[in-house]
Amino acid sequence: MENQIFHLQYAMDTFYFLVCGALVMWMAAGFAMLEAGLVRSKNTTEILTKNVALFAISCTMYLIVGYDIMYGGGVLLSGVLVGDNYVASTLADFAAREDGFEGGSIYSGASDFFFQVVFVATAMSIVSGAVAERMKLWSFLLFAVVMTGFIYPMEGAWTWNGDDVFGLYNLGDLGFSDFAGSGIVHMAGAAAALAGVLLLGPRKGKYGRNGEVNAIPGANLPLATLGTFILWMGWFGFNGGSVLKLGDIANANSVAMVFLNTNAAAAGGLVAALITARLLFGKADLTMCLNGALAGLVAITAEPSTPTPIEATVIGAIGGVIVVFSILALDKLKIDDPVGAISVHGVVGFFGLMVVPFTNSGVTVTGQLVGALTIFAWVFGTSLIVWSAIKLITGIRVSEEVEYEGVDIEECGMEAYPEFTMK
Amino acid sequence: MENQIFHLQYAMDTFYFLVCGALVMWMAAGFAMLEAGLVRSKNTTEILTKNVALFAISCTMYLIVGYDIMYGGGVLLSGVLVGDNYVASTLADFAAREDGFEGGSIYSGASDFFFQVVFVATAMSIVSGAVAERMKLWSFLLFAVVMTGFIYPMEGAWTWNGDDVFGLYNLGDLGFSDFAGSGIVHMAGAAAALAGVLLLGPRKGKYGRNGEVNAIPGANLPLATLGTFILWMGWFGFNGGSVLKLGDIANANSVAMVFLNTNAAAAGGLVAALITARLLFGKADLTMCLNGALAGLVAITAEPSTPTPIEATVIGAIGGVIVVFSILALDKLKIDDPVGAISVHGVVGFFGLMVVPFTNSGVTVTGQLVGALTIFAWVFGTSLIVWSAIKLITGIRVSEEVEYEGVDIEECGMEAYPEFTMK
Amino acid sequence: MENQIFHLQYAMDTFYFLVCGALVMWMAAGFAMLEAGLVRSKNTTEILTKNVALFAISCTMYLIVGYDIMYGGGVLLSGVLVGDNYVASTLADFAAREDGFEGGSIYSGASDFFFQVVFVATAMSIVSGAVAERMKLWSFLLFAVVMTGFIYPMEGAWTWNGDDVFGLYNLGDLGFSDFAGSGIVHMAGAAAALAGVLLLGPRKGKYGRNGEVNAIPGANLPLATLGTFILWMGWFGFNGGSVLKLGDIANANSVAMVFLNTNAAAAGGLVAALITARLLFGKADLTMCLNGALAGLVAITAEPSTPTPIEATVIGAIGGVIVVFSILALDKLKIDDPVGAISVHGVVGFFGLMVVPFTNSGVTVTGQLVGALTIFAWVFGTSLIVWSAIKLITGIRVSEEVEYEGVDIEECGMEAYPEFTMK
Repeated sequence: MENQIFHLQYAMDTFYFLVCGALVMWMAAGFAMLEAGLVRSKNTTEILTKNVALFAISCTMYLIVGYDIMYGGGVLLSGVLVGDNYVASTLADFAAREDGFEGGSIYSGASDFFFQVVFVATAMSIVSGAVAERMKLWSFLLFAVVMTGFIYPMEGAWTWNGDDVFGLYNLGDLGFSDFAGSGIVHMAGAAAALAGVLLLGPRKGKYGRNGEVNAIPGANLPLATLGTFILWMGWFGFNGGSVLKLGDIANANSVAMVFLNTNAAAAGGLVAALITARLLFGKADLTMCLNGALAGLVAITAEPSTPTPIEATVIGAIGGVIVVFSILALDKLKIDDPVGAISVHGVVGFFGLMVVPFTNSGVTVTGQLVGALTIFAWVFGTSLIVWSAIKLITGIRVSEEVEYEGVDIEECGMEAYPEFTMK
Repeated sequence: MENQIFHLQYAMDTFYFLVCGALVMWMAAGFAMLEAGLVRSKNTTEILTKNVALFAISCTMYLIVGYDIMYGGGVLLSGVLVGDNYVASTLADFAAREDGFEGGSIYSGASDFFFQVVFVATAMSIVSGAVAERMKLWSFLLFAVVMTGFIYPMEGAWTWNGDDVFGLYNLGDLGFSDFAGSGIVHMAGAAAALAGVLLLGPRKGKYGRNGEVNAIPGANLPLATLGTFILWMGWFGFNGGSVLKLGDIANANSVAMVFLNTNAAAAGGLVAALITARLLFGKADLTMCLNGALAGLVAITAEPSTPTPIEATVIGAIGGVIVVFSILALDKLKIDDPVGAISVHGVVGFFGLMVVPFTNSGVTVTGQLVGALTIFAWVFGTSLIVWSAIKLITGIRVSEEVEYEGVDIEECGMEAYPEFTMK
Repeated sequence: MENQIFHLQYAMDTFYFLVCGALVMWMAAGFAMLEAGLVRSKNTTEILTKNVALFAISCTMYLIVGYDIMYGGGVLLSGVLVGDNYVASTLADFAAREDGFEGGSIYSGASDFFFQVVFVATAMSIVSGAVAERMKLWSFLLFAVVMTGFIYPMEGAWTWNGDDVFGLYNLGDLGFSDFAGSGIVHMAGAAAALAGVLLLGPRKGKYGRNGEVNAIPGANLPLATLGTFILWMGWFGFNGGSVLKLGDIANANSVAMVFLNTNAAAAGGLVAALITARLLFGKADLTMCLNGALAGLVAITAEPSTPTPIEATVIGAIGGVIVVFSILALDKLKIDDPVGAISVHGVVGFFGLMVVPFTNSGVTVTGQLVGALTIFAWVFGTSLIVWSAIKLITGIRVSEEVEYEGVDIEECGMEAYPEFTMK
């Protein structure tokens, strides 16, 4: 009968992973809609194509090599080329333990992979928004291959798998903790984006000669709002699934607390950004509201289980204030990020890491700092090298004429809204 | 081993609440898309801003005071102001019972709060549609603060918490029952909306001098359709989660029956509205179809567990017929409701309450009538007072010029579709 | 205590069905958005109306007669007319077993019906896209009544219920297997669509006199992309729920594997279509990417549990290549399918069936061929008869003038985007 109870717990925890994973997969649609809503209509087909393609590439690359690097020590990497596969062998391992279950597998290996693989795509989705409206499509997809197959899995191995950083130091020992990935996923995505943006330069017309910043409004705000709601919903899976287990009272309480706090932080971020923007601009700025909600979500992601709901609201609210000022600051620095991704995921991701010690006594400020720097240095550094190499070989920026005409026709051969806009 | 079984049941019921709660949260996106699709393009950014902001405000206000009023007798209300918090103390209570579980907590307190908090937002979302295209944004948000922090929690305490209505009478004793909130949530939202609409007056140009009703078509029907599908899906969580327990055969059967009937009623409502509109107007009227589906959903919400699927279809269908005639009738009365929210949620919400005794013998017609009147009188009365106070202090209606130009630029400083529409 | 364990397992398996069913219901929104995005703006309201109405009709018809034909041998069919109902009696049966559970019911009958009913709508949704922009609305809905109440349930009974095909042969005995419905649902929908398209003829202007194929671009590609993401997400429920049981280790592993493989196949299909289109047209063709992802999903649906993830990726990728060539080939044959539904669901659905024997040794090539032919012959044949009868009685194609002006005004009396397009 104990056997039967174990069966049930195994099934429940597996299903919990799958439901959470499906919600994280749904975030890919959220990023696609958010970005498609915030670019101009002439660049919309291309940003959609990048978003669907990067999701597919992420899933495929993580299957072939990424999961092996992140959780298998890369030992089978060479084997991959001759047809061996870490995921397949892991699954076989899990399957072998089906009847005995002494091996310690308490949920399906396939569900674990499914949950992990959609995280990779999230990290990559962050990049597409920041480089929008000027980056060559195929250069971007080439970067996606390297990012999802190699750059992300490496830092993921150091943090979530507990590997030493190049054999030098262990982040866990230093008191580093990043519950669901404010740093490992979000700041990492932003670091890769920042490297790309620095090499790309701003969109034509964004910054005037005399330091003026020209607004380039997004073409479809309902789409951007939908994207934000999708991300908000998907984040329940992102954070809630990161408890990694549901099936007993303590874990169930933790999962529930994470759902509650994730929602509270998003709400806090939205309200704070709404008020901040009102004070600064005198208007109820919708795009700032959306970025505020996302900032609240990013901020709480590093530790959604220990704060009280009021603390979570406050953490989210601080994230919402930070994001408004960060977006303004990046524009001062002429770092052109059409959707605010670097501010939302990078700057607030860093804040999220640093606020963890306030509610989780097992985590140190030093550990968080070293961890943040390690992730940033690795992802930014390697990304800069990869972007530079691609720039050298194929170029990363479309021609001025294509940028002016819009990248949709040149890259994809079709307009997103052929009947709604005038030439 | 019994201990282990209890752990599993606790985890399962908690997860069930969280999944249902996430679906209800998703309804916020549904309302936003529905309303954004049914207003004109010049008022779209503003309705989106109202929708995202009201969701965030609902979550925050219910956390700070609403939950305490609704389920805690308001005893900590004064304490809130000095930093105490009912939600936090409830969660602490639940956590303390983790190991003993004699206390009767059979799921996580955090999951209960998460499920309850998204209901508040639903009630408030109903209001935004009815007052669209002419209500000042900040006045609306001020009302949202009072509605979600006070007005809704008060009637919620009488109905779902079983408190006496001002110490006068107890609705449960009178045989009142509202399973998932046809009255408590939907009719309540519509009552608050009606009070606002009466004070606001109709949009300019909606009603001509000679009694003619001018159609003001929505700008984006795919968006409205998407919103309806989102609401339909989210309603599975809304009604399904209201069984409040999943983890044994009887409750599992009940939850499944609720899913089935909720779907059947929506389908019935849609088909009935389609046919009714065809007979009246000679066309397959899409917006009537959408409102018909929503009417079916509202109608079944008061009791989705006792009807047979055929009965659920019929209940939904009657709701679908009612909504068409109600929308026409409100226009005759010059009550201008751009999205039909008062008809869908108010008129059909009342119908939903009154039809319960036909399939649930424990419920009385008198109880339903008294309950409906109590909810309506309370919400309509207090809302009228609050709207009037706001009208006096800051005004509730935008200027004629702003209404003509569209509220987006004035309130939010940005257009929703800057490239698609002509000045 | 064993009793309690059974209760938990029953509840868990019921909930699993309901969650998966809700995801499949969500696919209806996906088809609606996909199709609305790929037609021209003047035909958008009508395609939305068809999509919401066919979903409602499917749910109602399957409730009244379809489920009885498919799983009850049609014995109560005559009874239906006098008020008896197979679904109700099945549910009563299930309820009766609540306490004893010796009867073998291991989950709620209502959850089974809920899961089955949303499948019917999927089959029907496939049809609407292929006949878009020229089929009369009411003729289409009349066909939906017959398809969902009779044509689909008949072939469903032969395949998933194991009935003999007209008493002649049994597909299961021949080694036929279709896990989640590459053939039973997707190819069946495509067969009904093909029959309609052949009788309808192509849209005016699609094919020139000299054999040229004119592109008719969709009006709203973000919508089409959203629809694809929704379908991708919903497919986890479609395939994952088709394991039919979650609550032990073997089944949980199977469900998890199905989620993983479903995702991998979609990713493979997308990447393959992206590359194929690049080689053929020199562009990153977004609509081909979307169809590639859907093709990958259709291809894996016949057997998502036995392939390794790499095999699933390859199966999806082959589907993605096939769909591109199939779309080109159908245009050569002047079979006009505005959204590519016949290629995605029909041609790739057939491929999905035929690839099963490679990873599942219990399935034979002969069985798959006979099964595919049986399904196709039945659905195509009966559909041809029904479409022809409707054509005779009321006509199936709108007038040339209406087609030129767009069907929205004529059929629905309203435009989808009244402010965005010019006359």
